[in-house]
Amino acid sequence: MLRKSVSMYLREHREELLSSYFKLLRFPSIANAPMAEGCGPCAEWIAGRLRGLGVRAEVLPTAGQPAVVGELHVDDSLPTLLAYAHYDVQPPDPLDLWRSPPFEPEIRDGRLYARGACDNKAGVILHLWAVEAYQRGGGLPMNLKVIFEGEEEVGSPHMEPFLAAHADRLAADALIITDGGFFDHDCPAICYALRGLCYFEVAFTGPDRDLHSGAAGGVVRNPIHALAAMIGALHDETGRVAIPGFYDDVRPLTDAERDEWARLPFTDEQEMRRHGVGVLAGGEAGRGTLERKWARPSLDCNGIWGGYTQAGSKTVLPSKASAKISMRLVGDQDPATIDAAFRKFVADHTPAGIRSEVSAFGLARPVLLDREQPAAEAVRGAFREAFGLETRMVRMGASIPTTELFQRILGLDGVVTGLGLPDSNIHAPNENLPVDHLLRGAEWMAAVYQLVSETSAPSGKPAK
Amino acid sequence: MLRKSVSMYLREHREELLSSYFKLLRFPSIANAPMAEGCGPCAEWIAGRLRGLGVRAEVLPTAGQPAVVGELHVDDSLPTLLAYAHYDVQPPDPLDLWRSPPFEPEIRDGRLYARGACDNKAGVILHLWAVEAYQRGGGLPMNLKVIFEGEEEVGSPHMEPFLAAHADRLAADALIITDGGFFDHDCPAICYALRGLCYFEVAFTGPDRDLHSGAAGGVVRNPIHALAAMIGALHDETGRVAIPGFYDDVRPLTDAERDEWARLPFTDEQEMRRHGVGVLAGGEAGRGTLERKWARPSLDCNGIWGGYTQAGSKTVLPSKASAKISMRLVGDQDPATIDAAFRKFVADHTPAGIRSEVSAFGLARPVLLDREQPAAEAVRGAFREAFGLETRMVRMGASIPTTELFQRILGLDGVVTGLGLPDSNIHAPNENLPVDHLLRGAEWMAAVYQLVSETSAPSGKPAK
Repeated sequence: MLRKSVSMYLREHREELLSSYFKLLRFPSIANAPMAEGCGPCAEWIAGRLRGLGVRAEVLPTAGQPAVVGELHVDDSLPTLLAYAHYDVQPPDPLDLWRSPPFEPEIRDGRLYARGACDNKAGVILHLWAVEAYQRGGGLPMNLKVIFEGEEEVGSPHMEPFLAAHADRLAADALIITDGGFFDHDCPAICYALRGLCYFEVAFTGPDRDLHSGAAGGVVRNPIHALAAMIGALHDETGRVAIPGFYDDVRPLTDAERDEWARLPFTDEQEMRRHGVGVLAGGEAGRGTLERKWARPSLDCNGIWGGYTQAGSKTVLPSKASAKISMRLVGDQDPATIDAAFRKFVADHTPAGIRSEVSAFGLARPVLLDREQPAAEAVRGAFREAFGLETRMVRMGASIPTTELFQRILGLDGVVTGLGLPDSNIHAPNENLPVDHLLRGAEWMAAVYQLVSETSAPSGKPAK
Repeated sequence: MLRKSVSMYLREHREELLSSYFKLLRFPSIANAPMAEGCGPCAEWIAGRLRGLGVRAEVLPTAGQPAVVGELHVDDSLPTLLAYAHYDVQPPDPLDLWRSPPFEPEIRDGRLYARGACDNKAGVILHLWAVEAYQRGGGLPMNLKVIFEGEEEVGSPHMEPFLAAHADRLAADALIITDGGFFDHDCPAICYALRGLCYFEVAFTGPDRDLHSGAAGGVVRNPIHALAAMIGALHDETGRVAIPGFYDDVRPLTDAERDEWARLPFTDEQEMRRHGVGVLAGGEAGRGTLERKWARPSLDCNGIWGGYTQAGSKTVLPSKASAKISMRLVGDQDPATIDAAFRKFVADHTPAGIRSEVSAFGLARPVLLDREQPAAEAVRGAFREAFGLETRMVRMGASIPTTELFQRILGLDGVVTGLGLPDSNIHAPNENLPVDHLLRGAEWMAAVYQLVSETSAPSGKPAK
């Protein structure tokens, strides 16, 4: 059971806790290169805050945005929990759809609105709050290490060398990754499998400058047509990805998982409402919604641009057209294999008169985690204690690239969990979390610490 | 022969003439709605200049940008020439490819660079200069009417009611449309047929907001995919437009024209160099370049946009994707028929989960003009006199929507001609005309006035 002093502290300091969260949310910590000046100050603020709580914390550079690393060592006889979350956020556009500015947090109808309010500054603040409550109430019940990354939303391109370089420093007995979420309202979850990601930018160039469509139309190949035809060819009529070999390494869904998922509180109608659509027409025909989302790979064009895109008309035959195209991968697809297959597909669909270029952003491998480890049991117990709710075991359609890196480099299977709700609008305008839910989350995290201290084994020693 | 006083005036006042052209070029007279504040002042400047030369000139409103209309009546026994050009220009983007700012004219290596320097403020200034030279040297040899439009580059959407309302005021014996150009360096031309235009914006909407591609990828239909597939389906593998019925009314090219075109100074290599491409891969396979450009319809996507289009990566499944799509039409295609066929095609290619909208901008009918009228002979004679060059009869791949309106509403077949050169970069960055060529053009226009006065018949009277 959670120490009373800890839960009292959290209940009696709601306003101060929220006030510190507002400060964190005001940093425009977007990791995309042209906007990244908000990351460094955000990392420094977190490290400063940690130090104020007695954690030995540093901002460590990577080849991109810095990471915050900290340690609060209590006693060698206690287990060590490593906590991962990311302080960088998605770009906030389209800005005109936000009801309040994305980096000026606002509470409306009991919900806290801000870019990052859910994904994933909530994952950071829960630890700051839990540490604060324990430090004010007698100290932590276990050893804590933290790593708060600054480039998750751009695919964690520098985490692999970073984790390798700091492997000793980050060694731990358990790992909690608070970048997950609830499966539904009143339905907390642990995610034991995540899809991987390949993200590309493709540019098709035709003439060396924009031409007049009257003078060149019907004579010069239009790069938008060529790009559109290539994108059109990426799926067949049944919604399958048409890149040769794309499905070769896909591990089929087991009957056990299919049965487990059938018992989840889930309907297609619910899913449609969540996404604001009237039909679930994406993906492979003939497969269930959760299977398509969790156990099958997908391919999406995330953006496209070229030629004249302002109001009115301009009769231009453009020089260039570009698209961002990404794929979600599942076990046992290898991003390197998919990368090569995609590049070959683009080359095969580049007609005469067009020059194509493919650049890759982050690659992340799909990952499958240990469902039954002690830390997972601690998280389930804490949800029971703080929320009075049973935890469901789920997969996730999204990617958290470091999850696979922790497994491969540090030998740690993370417990992927968190507070996100289906209507939290992550990666979208008006991102939010209910304030009560968030503050109850602080008690949940404090309970996780307590239960980890009771169930996990410190290095080299058997579990108590 | 051109009066000596007129040609002397033009030669002795080069700097003043250029200085007035610089003033005209500095107006950012872009007719596209969000930028159109530059049009009114430009029209007022032109009208003021005309009045200073003794022309009764007014700025007349339309439902969009105003037109400048003027008349200089000399004598009832003289023929009346109506002069058309347009003072509006294409938007200058992409701005970063201009070597000097588009609305700050600059002379480099004997060429005058500015947006509109060729298309089509040159067509306006030639008349201002010719009138000035005649007025300073004894008066015009014929009656002149002018109409300078302010919305040609957006498809002249308001010219049809405007011409109908002012038909009496614009009545004339001949019409010169100086929005054409040379077929090649040292090869002046008269254009006797222009392609028509249908211009559309198409929007495909899927979910009602941008979604996370991890949470929705493989479940929700992506509007970029649907739009790309539709655009991809607009052409078949031989480059033919695949809209059912698209070619039904296309008038085949005659053998006589094919023979005439074969004698033009034209090679595919030349065309490739002009467009900056290594292959002429646009349009229908198996047809010659000039046929595809002048006598066959074409379809181009002029712009496309949707989703995340900034630097780096964002894993979004976007709500909406849009494209601008235009078609160049030839006789006897009817824009209204093509409009309906295109809308049906889009509807037929809108899959479940996507809502499509089509809006039309300007529609222009294709046009075929009288090649042998007296004013055409006057233009040919003037090119001989001012440039020492023979004029070729050509078609044009582009559209000048008012050409067809003048024919249909005023009963006037225009002589479409002008100074534009293949490397003038119209509709593109670094638009230009050589200064000497432009000033020789002033003498050409003065000679056109003289020859029209000698060869055209005034209303109701036989030619002299």
